[in-house]
Amino acid sequence: MTDYVAPLSDMRFVIERMAPLAAVTTLPGFGDATPDLVDAVLDGANTFASEVLSPLNWPGDQVGAVHNGEGVTTAPGWQDAYRQFVDGGWNGLGCAPEFGGQGLPKLIATAVGEMWNSANMSFALCPMLTQGAIEAIEVHGTDDQRALWLPRMVSGEWTGTMNLTEPQAGSDLSAVRTRAERDGKQFRIFGQKIYITYGEHDLTSNIVHLVLAKIPGPDGKTIAGTKGISLFIVPKFLVNEDGSLGERNDVRVAGLNHKMGYRGTVNAVFNLGEQGGAKGWLLGEAHQGLSYMFHMMNEARVGVGLGAVALGYTGYLHSLKYARERPQGRHASNKDPASPQVPIVEHADIRRLLLAQKAAVEGGLALALYCAQLIDLERTCTVAAERDRLNLLLDLLTPIVKSWPSEFCLEANKHAIQILGGYGYTRDYPLERFYRDNRLNPIHEGAHGIHGLDLLGRKVAMREGAALSALLSEIDFTLSAAAVLPALTAHCTQLAAVVSQLKTTTARLGLLRDGGEAPRALANAGIYLDTFGQVVIGWMWLRMAVVAARKLPQASGSELDFYTGKLHACQYFFRYELVKAGERLSLLATADDTCLSMQDAWF
Amino acid sequence: MTDYVAPLSDMRFVIERMAPLAAVTTLPGFGDATPDLVDAVLDGANTFASEVLSPLNWPGDQVGAVHNGEGVTTAPGWQDAYRQFVDGGWNGLGCAPEFGGQGLPKLIATAVGEMWNSANMSFALCPMLTQGAIEAIEVHGTDDQRALWLPRMVSGEWTGTMNLTEPQAGSDLSAVRTRAERDGKQFRIFGQKIYITYGEHDLTSNIVHLVLAKIPGPDGKTIAGTKGISLFIVPKFLVNEDGSLGERNDVRVAGLNHKMGYRGTVNAVFNLGEQGGAKGWLLGEAHQGLSYMFHMMNEARVGVGLGAVALGYTGYLHSLKYARERPQGRHASNKDPASPQVPIVEHADIRRLLLAQKAAVEGGLALALYCAQLIDLERTCTVAAERDRLNLLLDLLTPIVKSWPSEFCLEANKHAIQILGGYGYTRDYPLERFYRDNRLNPIHEGAHGIHGLDLLGRKVAMREGAALSALLSEIDFTLSAAAVLPALTAHCTQLAAVVSQLKTTTARLGLLRDGGEAPRALANAGIYLDTFGQVVIGWMWLRMAVVAARKLPQASGSELDFYTGKLHACQYFFRYELVKAGERLSLLATADDTCLSMQDAWF
Repeated sequence: MTDYVAPLSDMRFVIERMAPLAAVTTLPGFGDATPDLVDAVLDGANTFASEVLSPLNWPGDQVGAVHNGEGVTTAPGWQDAYRQFVDGGWNGLGCAPEFGGQGLPKLIATAVGEMWNSANMSFALCPMLTQGAIEAIEVHGTDDQRALWLPRMVSGEWTGTMNLTEPQAGSDLSAVRTRAERDGKQFRIFGQKIYITYGEHDLTSNIVHLVLAKIPGPDGKTIAGTKGISLFIVPKFLVNEDGSLGERNDVRVAGLNHKMGYRGTVNAVFNLGEQGGAKGWLLGEAHQGLSYMFHMMNEARVGVGLGAVALGYTGYLHSLKYARERPQGRHASNKDPASPQVPIVEHADIRRLLLAQKAAVEGGLALALYCAQLIDLERTCTVAAERDRLNLLLDLLTPIVKSWPSEFCLEANKHAIQILGGYGYTRDYPLERFYRDNRLNPIHEGAHGIHGLDLLGRKVAMREGAALSALLSEIDFTLSAAAVLPALTAHCTQLAAVVSQLKTTTARLGLLRDGGEAPRALANAGIYLDTFGQVVIGWMWLRMAVVAARKLPQASGSELDFYTGKLHACQYFFRYELVKAGERLSLLATADDTCLSMQDAWF
Repeated sequence: MTDYVAPLSDMRFVIERMAPLAAVTTLPGFGDATPDLVDAVLDGANTFASEVLSPLNWPGDQVGAVHNGEGVTTAPGWQDAYRQFVDGGWNGLGCAPEFGGQGLPKLIATAVGEMWNSANMSFALCPMLTQGAIEAIEVHGTDDQRALWLPRMVSGEWTGTMNLTEPQAGSDLSAVRTRAERDGKQFRIFGQKIYITYGEHDLTSNIVHLVLAKIPGPDGKTIAGTKGISLFIVPKFLVNEDGSLGERNDVRVAGLNHKMGYRGTVNAVFNLGEQGGAKGWLLGEAHQGLSYMFHMMNEARVGVGLGAVALGYTGYLHSLKYARERPQGRHASNKDPASPQVPIVEHADIRRLLLAQKAAVEGGLALALYCAQLIDLERTCTVAAERDRLNLLLDLLTPIVKSWPSEFCLEANKHAIQILGGYGYTRDYPLERFYRDNRLNPIHEGAHGIHGLDLLGRKVAMREGAALSALLSEIDFTLSAAAVLPALTAHCTQLAAVVSQLKTTTARLGLLRDGGEAPRALANAGIYLDTFGQVVIGWMWLRMAVVAARKLPQASGSELDFYTGKLHACQYFFRYELVKAGERLSLLATADDTCLSMQDAWF
């Protein structure tokens, strides 16, 4: 039972034209990523996603992972699929060759990740989390730590996790209580962690947990706030110096969380240190845990946005297929009940639901791969000023690439269900699962509201607006390229106007924020985040439209359809979606305090 | 495990001030509905909903109804709860005393229905469907039919269903293939029906199906279109003249649909006539089935909107409770990490998510009860012109009351989950169930897009815009009342402007529609529907604000909080939501053809 097909033509369009592979393959270390190799990787990933991962959704969603007392049994078929995943070399696609990885650019690993996500989101989380742990150890670990942990994590022999959340510490990590007591060269860790994705499973012989815990201050007391927080490597089984497994560590799964979606995933509650302390090794320096975790999370956030896009994209393709095949009703101008029904893709309202999805998912994919390319460029850049600029851009776009798809590709899944009507609401089609899965994305890796505060309270202000300036320069560059194309004149005018309004509004709110009225300035930060995202996606669409408008005169056949579709979807986005940004920015500019001044007793 | 509490204070506010009970109790037949009796009914329903219905959600959602080969077993506890429901006299609350009902106004039955819906939507569908069938038989049945069927359906001894959909006939009922062949005084019916809510169950000894089927034309052939469609009474067990049960009818459940939500409900696929034909009796006149069904569906549509409100409302109350109890983070102005965390209701973004819910669910409840009152007034009105006016109003508001809550109270459930964060996404809280349940409402009883076409293509145009004029007069009346209250001046100006824009836009699209460009005029009907709904809910909020502004000077304590909250939520709705309508109406006025002109090949 597989019906997964990757959006390869759009993906190749983005990789060739939007976040050009050519710009990446000239970078040190990426010379092997030739177009032919990339093509083969994408084709192979599509096959694997379709044939191996997609059929696992049913057992994953219906049976799920089961807590069997001591450990966790994953759904039927998952062990075998994971073994094939590892054997195929997929786990280390974007990892350093020195640890056994394939060394492909982040851009390509991200495109492939899109396929894992859309084919089986619950499965995809496992390698995604491992990837985050690999990067943290690679960047912050000692040589010994890297040599001990990375080869087996890159190959997929062991998986990795991130342990942040505790019952009383969700969005507010300063409330972390898990404590780490020094014990010679190592630490003993005590506490409880929740929502640990793949925190326990039967896919591999060991699991490498990265755990946030507080080292007590010199007086032995917990340090208030985020300062004491450090990051530790806490394996499920201790590892001997030769890499063989030693005794079981004092980390036990206390139970599983059961969620609306992601039901094939293991989501565990952990107890650490019930029997004398879980052994852990400090990663990097003490008290730097949160900044390391945020470094890791920034990439995870691109991953969350990508996951939202992936679920939106596969939902779009499923609903498009259905709309082309389902006969129902007739054209508004046809009153003859004896005439045949038309496929519902002929109805304007169905086209609207399809266009809204197309605009969201293709815009989202372009942004996610653009950010992945920024990571490649920034990592390998040797010119400090340029590296700084790339870093600023990526920092600014992180809350956007995480949040915009989480909101609007979830909306896309809502539209996909609507197109299938009653059928879409049943479990006979995967749309309802996509919708359930996608609802997590505005929550995890920083809730929507937190990212709004991050963007408006910090990112647009940092270094006197340097990041915002860097972004606006990029947008100006696109506007210049588009201005000479007559088909895009109206779009240019519209985007330039809304960008100017965004600048003014940001400046006004910045004055308030820095003038002692931070609560009022930030009161509508969630709306600011969404609106900023609309502008960024509008920019992505204009970038796509520039390519399409240039290609159109020479195109024919399916290429002509493809580029015409891009221009039409761009028109949809500008006229139906981006147009809303002006009204939202007018609201934001008033620094309205209706929400801020609402009192608890009035609810 | 119950945590259901009805929003009694808001409900009483609406019943006293928005859709005043006093206007109903003067009507013939409703004299018994004194304020004291109504209070007792609301209190009793709250207790029943909380103590009996709410605890059934877990088995309903997790175990659900099971097809046991011959019949269907409902989830554990459901039989007993249904018996208590019937014994308590709840089933016939709004039904005619002549058939054993309590004869309460629709207004009160609807308020009580809100509690059944929010306490247990899956359960509530059973009496809701029975109610629809009762009304169809009461209005269209012969005296004999009424005497035979109604007493047992009103008491709840038997339940009722509506059978419309077939695999090839969803939104397009002209494609119905189920056929009815005359056989003496009765008919033999052959075909398949799907999505039959409570089409089979173990709650009662008999089930009365109302089935749409086509009587062949004089030539024996199926009549194309909707003309041949007639409505039949097709019981599960035949009924002898004395009311005792006879033999099993030829209606068999072929399987159950499994859905994302409503999982305690039975949703059946039916085969009729596999063994010689299901026996059915014509209800009303031949070939009038669709108009009867639409009459019944108009009330069902108020019920769907009410269901969406109910799920939104209970989600709002759950998330409000959580926001008041969950400590996390500090105020934006407080940088001391050693200071205690504040309840998250203190954060502006959480208040925004709460205000968005409050605005949607209280606005939706006011509209649903207003429509219920219109039904009471229209049914009992003896002055033809006034009855006509009420009928027009109700007809126009039907797509709105069905669709606006379906869209915006689903959004409210999305916000409720967001407030709980990771917890809201787990099955430890009911929010994720509300969200799954509510996703059905934009689909059933006419999909969202269909109602858009109904509103823009038919309702605003009918009888030269008489219904629209009737609504605009009502809005003008509210505007006049609000104009003298200084606190509401800005709201009056805003609503008057958007109403004027709605009129102009409607007229412009009407000219197009009647000038041979119907496809283009109707291309954005879905957006028109949402926008029209925003204006109507804005009107509802202004009506509530008028009462609150008048009451405020004398209010104190919790009443002061209540009215202040109403005014603040009204301000939220106007500044954050209604303000969007202007931009949407500008788009609609251009009769943009982006969606209409999109071609299948371009996707």
